[in-house]
Amino acid sequence: MGVPGHRLDAMFNPKTVVVVGDKGPNYMWLQNNMPFKEKGGNLYSVQLDAKEIEGIEKLGIQNFTSMADVPELIDYALVAVPRQVSPFILKDLIAVGANGAAFFTSGFAETGEELGIKLQNTLVDMAKPANFNLVGPNCMGLYLPKVGVRFNNDAPIADDGKIGFLSQSGTHGIMFSLVAGANGMHLSRCASFGNAVVLDVSDYVDYLMHDDETEVIGMYVEGARDGRRFFETLREACKRKPVVVWKGGQTSAGARATMSHTGSLASDQAVWEGMMRQCGAIVTNNLDETIDVMKALTLAKRPAGRGVALLAQTGGQSVSITDAFAKQGFDVARFTDKTYAELESFFNIIGGSFQNPLDMGGTVQGKTETLQRILSIVEADENIDAIVMELSAMFAARQWKAKPETLTDMLDTLKTHQEASGKPFFAVIHPAHEAEYIASIQPEFHSRAIPVFASFERAAAAVKRVYDFHNGG
Amino acid sequence: MGVPGHRLDAMFNPKTVVVVGDKGPNYMWLQNNMPFKEKGGNLYSVQLDAKEIEGIEKLGIQNFTSMADVPELIDYALVAVPRQVSPFILKDLIAVGANGAAFFTSGFAETGEELGIKLQNTLVDMAKPANFNLVGPNCMGLYLPKVGVRFNNDAPIADDGKIGFLSQSGTHGIMFSLVAGANGMHLSRCASFGNAVVLDVSDYVDYLMHDDETEVIGMYVEGARDGRRFFETLREACKRKPVVVWKGGQTSAGARATMSHTGSLASDQAVWEGMMRQCGAIVTNNLDETIDVMKALTLAKRPAGRGVALLAQTGGQSVSITDAFAKQGFDVARFTDKTYAELESFFNIIGGSFQNPLDMGGTVQGKTETLQRILSIVEADENIDAIVMELSAMFAARQWKAKPETLTDMLDTLKTHQEASGKPFFAVIHPAHEAEYIASIQPEFHSRAIPVFASFERAAAAVKRVYDFHNGG
Repeated sequence: MGVPGHRLDAMFNPKTVVVVGDKGPNYMWLQNNMPFKEKGGNLYSVQLDAKEIEGIEKLGIQNFTSMADVPELIDYALVAVPRQVSPFILKDLIAVGANGAAFFTSGFAETGEELGIKLQNTLVDMAKPANFNLVGPNCMGLYLPKVGVRFNNDAPIADDGKIGFLSQSGTHGIMFSLVAGANGMHLSRCASFGNAVVLDVSDYVDYLMHDDETEVIGMYVEGARDGRRFFETLREACKRKPVVVWKGGQTSAGARATMSHTGSLASDQAVWEGMMRQCGAIVTNNLDETIDVMKALTLAKRPAGRGVALLAQTGGQSVSITDAFAKQGFDVARFTDKTYAELESFFNIIGGSFQNPLDMGGTVQGKTETLQRILSIVEADENIDAIVMELSAMFAARQWKAKPETLTDMLDTLKTHQEASGKPFFAVIHPAHEAEYIASIQPEFHSRAIPVFASFERAAAAVKRVYDFHNGG
Repeated sequence: MGVPGHRLDAMFNPKTVVVVGDKGPNYMWLQNNMPFKEKGGNLYSVQLDAKEIEGIEKLGIQNFTSMADVPELIDYALVAVPRQVSPFILKDLIAVGANGAAFFTSGFAETGEELGIKLQNTLVDMAKPANFNLVGPNCMGLYLPKVGVRFNNDAPIADDGKIGFLSQSGTHGIMFSLVAGANGMHLSRCASFGNAVVLDVSDYVDYLMHDDETEVIGMYVEGARDGRRFFETLREACKRKPVVVWKGGQTSAGARATMSHTGSLASDQAVWEGMMRQCGAIVTNNLDETIDVMKALTLAKRPAGRGVALLAQTGGQSVSITDAFAKQGFDVARFTDKTYAELESFFNIIGGSFQNPLDMGGTVQGKTETLQRILSIVEADENIDAIVMELSAMFAARQWKAKPETLTDMLDTLKTHQEASGKPFFAVIHPAHEAEYIASIQPEFHSRAIPVFASFERAAAAVKRVYDFHNGG
């Protein structure tokens, strides 16, 4: 698929990948990209250092001592050489007509040193006139889960990625991919782009917005070289698909940190926020918020309005879930008389309640018929646009641990409801004192594509962001 | 110890506890309180229902069919009878001169029903003239971890509790005790007090502020019957020890939920917040915030100023930790020249940085000497009032899992630093994709009393609350 004719298309759909300057004993970059070779891609090494070559060849990787010897056209090179060597490598890559390269090498303008700044300028002065697709420097490069190109050897290989992710930070790019994977979501394409001195965030956004495999775009960004171009690209992207923007350096101290991280200059935070609003981007502030909103965007249906039905297991949690959603501007709507009548026919008033929030009294975690009945009654209520349901770690410890089939039955009931309903469904389970157990059962939710959040506040914030995006919040 | 002469002292330090109306097959309330019997307390049952008595006696509990037959003075009774029966039980308890009782029974004013309101008024009209210590109704009663009185059979038994906790919600009381326990913190005394129609939150606060075993007070409260008295009691308590107040029903929808939960009337949120500020209470909004601030209060030293040293493992996290703390008003102060010189002598500038935030480049998780050296240099800096250090789930997965002794060594280093330093130390480890593993190693932190938080934002919010409390923020 990809975006035929786009300048980044060959690099984002590589047939030939070269690692330049990898080192033992671990040969990190070749190891990261072994899945690419296993999937039939051409994975080569370019390394001059004689004492590294034996180790590389032991991995079954063909090594060349000159870029010109690589037998195929290079679509993507990952360069890990000392900073003083990097201009020579770039010269070779331009000479052979490579389609793109990421420079893992750091020590450039982000150090504030004269030598680093000079070396960075050299790279820019070589790449720009050659129209060369230089990713970075000071970055982890590309992660393409479908073809097996990776920036980390834990990153999942997957064909079903829907999220395109861009990150000016290597850590945040890697962590997003790992945490998304742990939450049952995969990436379509990802670039960690560091100092962004040649290709800027706008170039990548331009690719992802045209890429059919990417349904949602997310990014961690510390600044844009060309603010006007970023604004225009982002505005266009937001018309085509949801775009989630997590900005690093929101405070003056944080901006000082971005300067020494990727050499990004401070941008006025108020101006930035205004720009995001005008574009219609979804703004987040950290990894958790970014993951949460991705869940709400990719795993749930769209909420058509602000009316939420809140189902909790006890009275105290009924109050808490209500405060969390009401604070985000949701309408904890009274049910219609029809709904009340139907609930009253089988629901015990003492120790529970059949108002919204609905206090389920802890019973339904083990009783799928009751749960099914409640969900279908509430779902049909015309005042309700979305259902949010608390699952309780307290009851989980007693019920699911003792009888794992009660968890399976409940999740199957939720999945059946979710698929049949036109309204979004969200689950919340606070890890509480059972963090290890609750973590262990997350795959049960993910395999059923049930969006589950770690707190009422996190769920409410994510659903609010999605609602605002779709309804011009 | 306790508070000799206080009206609640006998109930909070019971020698004789009676469960009224417990039922099989589980005999939940007797089971919850077995540790009290094991620790030498007198635990009895009062139950008229002949078919329950055999099961009770099988548990080794002496049953009486009349309250008057209980051989000792009753310090605390837990009453679990149908609502219509509750006035008769209260009459008996008053007659025998019991020192207090909690009514688990619900179905009173919180239902909005005429019968429930009438029954509640009956209890009040009986208890008030008799000056009877009635806890609830519609509550879980007392949790006294030292003597073994419990409202839940998972609640820890512990002698070292410092936190007194009050909760108008049974769930929030139980969850606080369990999550505190899972975070290495124990309770001194706890009351779940539900509808609070006789004893109100102020009565319990008055006890805990005078109780030497209680160093910090926390509460989940939906309203106070007598606002003026609550204000005066709280103001006095805040002069003696930190008081953390989590209010349920902060929104109008949330207040509607409190009405059907504990019959609590809405209070104007702005008035409430003003009252909290004037008293100097620490305000939280949910369980996580309450747990976090308790960690910062009980496990760390007091921050004397706003200067924080931020130690992160990578560049991207350096930016994120800085934004989180700067947003809370902390000063990510530049180190003194002396500190820079000392750090520069052994720290690699490329791929790291020796500014504040300090990018440790992922190396120190396995190198305790480097870590020790950095901590002692930074701790001595006069611009620094507190150290916050990121630990990385990404590196944890590779290092600690493979070599568990590297985790132990690092934690011992942190503990040694923490004990020797006069400045507070806080750790942050985001569970990320390793939630199950990170949960499994929490006890390693807790056994060393190292305060550890799940995100930069949560750490920053907790430290800010503690700073403000101590510095009149």
